[in-house]
Order: sequence, then C-alpha cells, then structure tokens
Amino acid sequence: MTVITQYVVVRDGEEKMTFTSKAEADAHDKMLDMAEKLFPLLQKSGALQSEKEVEDLALFLAREREELLIALNAKKTAKPKKPPTTA
Amino acid sequence: MTVITQYVVVRDGEEKMTFTSKAEADAHDKMLDMAEKLFPLLQKSGALQSEKEVEDLALFLAREREELLIALNAKKTAKPKKPPTTA
Repeated sequence: MTVITQYVVVRDGEEKMTFTSKAEADAHDKMLDMAEKLFPLLQKSGALQSEKEVEDLALFLAREREELLIALNAKKTAKPKKPPTTA
Repeated sequence: MTVITQYVVVRDGEEKMTFTSKAEADAHDKMLDMAEKLFPLLQKSGALQSEKEVEDLALFLAREREELLIALNAKKTAKPKKPPTTA
C-alpha cells in the first residue's frame, strides 16, 4: 500500500488543480492571485465583451508575467548566455 | 514677439502629441514605447477582435502601469499616508 501526497489548489471552496509538488501548487496559486487582481483592471479597460474573456485574458497575462514586466520596463530582458569561448 | 518651446512626440515620422514641458513629452514617449512592446503580447492572447482593440488595450495598460505592476506583485501598493498624530 502506498501513500502519495497531493497538493490541491482550492479557490472559494472549489478544487482548482492538483499537483504532486508543493512548489508547483504554490506557483499556480500565486498565478490565480495575480489573475484575480488583474480582473478589475482589465474590466475597467472596456476592451472585452464578456466576463469570461476578461478572465481568460487575466489568466493569460498572469502566465506571461515575465514578458509583461519586460514590456513595462520593470524587468530587463534575460541576456542570451554567451557560449563559452574556446581558447 | 515671443518664442515658445514646444516638445513634439514623433513616431514613425508622424507628430503624435505636443507638450510644453519636456518631462511630459518624455513620459508620453515612454508610454508609447511600452504600448508598442505590449502589442505583440496582447495580440498573442487572441482575446481581442481587431488590431485597433489590441492597440487601445496596449495604450490603456501602458497608462495603468502602476496598477498593473501592483497586480503582478512587482510593486507594493502605496500605503495611505498616516495623518500626523496630534499629541
């Protein structure tokens, strides 16, 4: 008999997603937090037709956080690592 | 006769906006830069119907930069200044 550990992201009492690693569960939970905070801002833009569209775009932008921060000059683009110079 | 200084934001050879202060012109120029970098990312989301909608949302998000950074946990919310405690 085996016992496995599952990490379940719960939102408003609803099980959203199950992970086998805590780090992944935490990352997903944090991403949902950001999407929740992006929602009212995107809704205020008036650019989208439905709540579902606002939700989808909020999730998309939360996932693309790094690209978004670079576009907003809040983060430097990761410099491509120089290949080791062969002497 | 008077000589006034105007600061004109030019994009792709087109005069976009005229300002009387350099700081304002620079801020507007920077905002257009951010909107330009946001455009491909928002287009990739597939959430919007037309290029014009993508452009409008990119400009909106560039203007709302501070709120966006707060939603993305890249900036702390400005704490409301405590009123001076009267001894």
